[in-house]
Amino acid sequence: MANRQIVLDRLPGAEKLAPGHFALKDGDVPSPGAGEVLLKTRYISLDAANRAWMQGATYRSALEGGQVMAGGSLSEVVESNVDHLKPGDLVFADIGWQDYGVAPGRRLQKLPDLKPETHLLSVYGIAGLTAYFGLLECGQPKAGETVVISAAAGSVGSIVGQIAKIKGCRVVGIAGGEEKGRWLTGELGFDAAVDYRSPEFKRQLRAAVPEGIDVYFDNTGGDVFEACLFAMKTHGRIACCGALSQYDGAPPPHGPRGVPGLIVTKRLTLRGFVVMDFADRNDKALADLQGWVASGQLKVTEDIVDGFENLPAALIGLLHGDNRGKRMVRV
Amino acid sequence: MANRQIVLDRLPGAEKLAPGHFALKDGDVPSPGAGEVLLKTRYISLDAANRAWMQGATYRSALEGGQVMAGGSLSEVVESNVDHLKPGDLVFADIGWQDYGVAPGRRLQKLPDLKPETHLLSVYGIAGLTAYFGLLECGQPKAGETVVISAAAGSVGSIVGQIAKIKGCRVVGIAGGEEKGRWLTGELGFDAAVDYRSPEFKRQLRAAVPEGIDVYFDNTGGDVFEACLFAMKTHGRIACCGALSQYDGAPPPHGPRGVPGLIVTKRLTLRGFVVMDFADRNDKALADLQGWVASGQLKVTEDIVDGFENLPAALIGLLHGDNRGKRMVRV
Repeated sequence: MANRQIVLDRLPGAEKLAPGHFALKDGDVPSPGAGEVLLKTRYISLDAANRAWMQGATYRSALEGGQVMAGGSLSEVVESNVDHLKPGDLVFADIGWQDYGVAPGRRLQKLPDLKPETHLLSVYGIAGLTAYFGLLECGQPKAGETVVISAAAGSVGSIVGQIAKIKGCRVVGIAGGEEKGRWLTGELGFDAAVDYRSPEFKRQLRAAVPEGIDVYFDNTGGDVFEACLFAMKTHGRIACCGALSQYDGAPPPHGPRGVPGLIVTKRLTLRGFVVMDFADRNDKALADLQGWVASGQLKVTEDIVDGFENLPAALIGLLHGDNRGKRMVRV
Repeated sequence: MANRQIVLDRLPGAEKLAPGHFALKDGDVPSPGAGEVLLKTRYISLDAANRAWMQGATYRSALEGGQVMAGGSLSEVVESNVDHLKPGDLVFADIGWQDYGVAPGRRLQKLPDLKPETHLLSVYGIAGLTAYFGLLECGQPKAGETVVISAAAGSVGSIVGQIAKIKGCRVVGIAGGEEKGRWLTGELGFDAAVDYRSPEFKRQLRAAVPEGIDVYFDNTGGDVFEACLFAMKTHGRIACCGALSQYDGAPPPHGPRGVPGLIVTKRLTLRGFVVMDFADRNDKALADLQGWVASGQLKVTEDIVDGFENLPAALIGLLHGDNRGKRMVRV
């Protein structure tokens, strides 16, 4: 058996990520040792965070040049040396961009048998849980409040906005381009959308939130963060989920204006989070998400790219905002 | 009777505040109407926020050129048209920089009779309550944690550090100059002090918090905020109390780096507050503060300047960091 691998051949540093940073290799299929499991990859999740891991240590250690590119996957158990997993079981794995990998069984949980299985990587995976906990725990939205989301057409943002609608909020999405905006309002039920690429962005944002923002779910940082900070209402909350605008290139020389001055005068709460922080409440979250999907209140959008060799281009495209909803590669 | 007044003759805009921005005037003593009280000023509180009010609307509307300079005071009731106040009672008032002023009685509360009465403006006034609620509510310090405070020798900071010690924390104060640092560690019991004016500031800060910062009480914003942000521990908390570094001059063109990136990866919580937000719990706070003062665990430092005419110079000096503890002017 061959084991295709894509390695991060060299770190991009302050450059934009490009195909030349990756290399395709043929590796061996590893053998699982005691307590280990051999996994075969079905789908690989693509996330903006993949690029952040190349910048330095985050909530995981930094990636290094020459290693198999890291990334989450939906994988199938092929051989198991643990009792709680058997061949054919599906798990969420962290074995990176390769056909086969070995992982310690104690870190793996059998996933439920549901269709389509890709939902395990989108709405019932990290994207859905991130949206759920970030909005509800960090944002604390109340019915009637105004919720604004950046990267609103992405895997997390598209779910955040729909949950906010379910909770009775007025929802404004920020996304790149008018077409995405039409999709957010037309398909997903957002109340308004604003194009951050427009030269009129700030004015349009102000017009979309005439009374200000109660909850801002930030996926981007940078200028969009700053614009929303200035539009916050007193006692508003900002859920800090990511800084997509700052991953693919040199680190910004400065941060947003208004920090910490506006945080004080508006009495804001900003809270950064990583989905694992709430893992003890995953069951409740998944039950809620499944209920909303079943009732049709939550539409799941997946952007599935075919072909292992397309992983680099799919990630690069995601960093440019090409995707709608959850992007993954079918291996 | 004469009524000396100091008016804010013109707004400083982006300039440093200077004596020429003020003018001394002789006004009339006003007469209290129905439901009103005539007050005579004893002590006027000087606060960095006084300068912030000149920049624009904050938690109160912006000051305007030509108006009597605003500021809190400890004042004595001279004539009362309300039942709950009688001549001789002391109140905390908002009548600004003048000998006499009229205020609606419903906004005034009789203050307790305690000695020295100046404590009503310091530890039992806005400074003490700000320190108490900001640290305990926004900072949520636990025994054994490391608490860092900027403007640590000021009215609020000097109390924050001592409360943190009472709560069993390791306390590091940031202040300007070695002499203030010696005072913080020698007199107030701080574990360490760091001089933000030193060219070695960042290195010294890192050395003072080798394991990172759990709670940062920010009075300054700016470069000190940025340095502390980079030194925060995972799940750390930042209480945003003020932005002293940014009040006296042009607004900074940029904010601190690391926002929001480090907020996400370190899972920080930043919370801005104004002391009035916690007014419903003032009684409990005052009881705690009085107990700590009585037991000698909390030392109160007051910097009392004599003479009404010295108000402008006393405020300008405070903005340059001349004071230790709570600065006020005895009228």
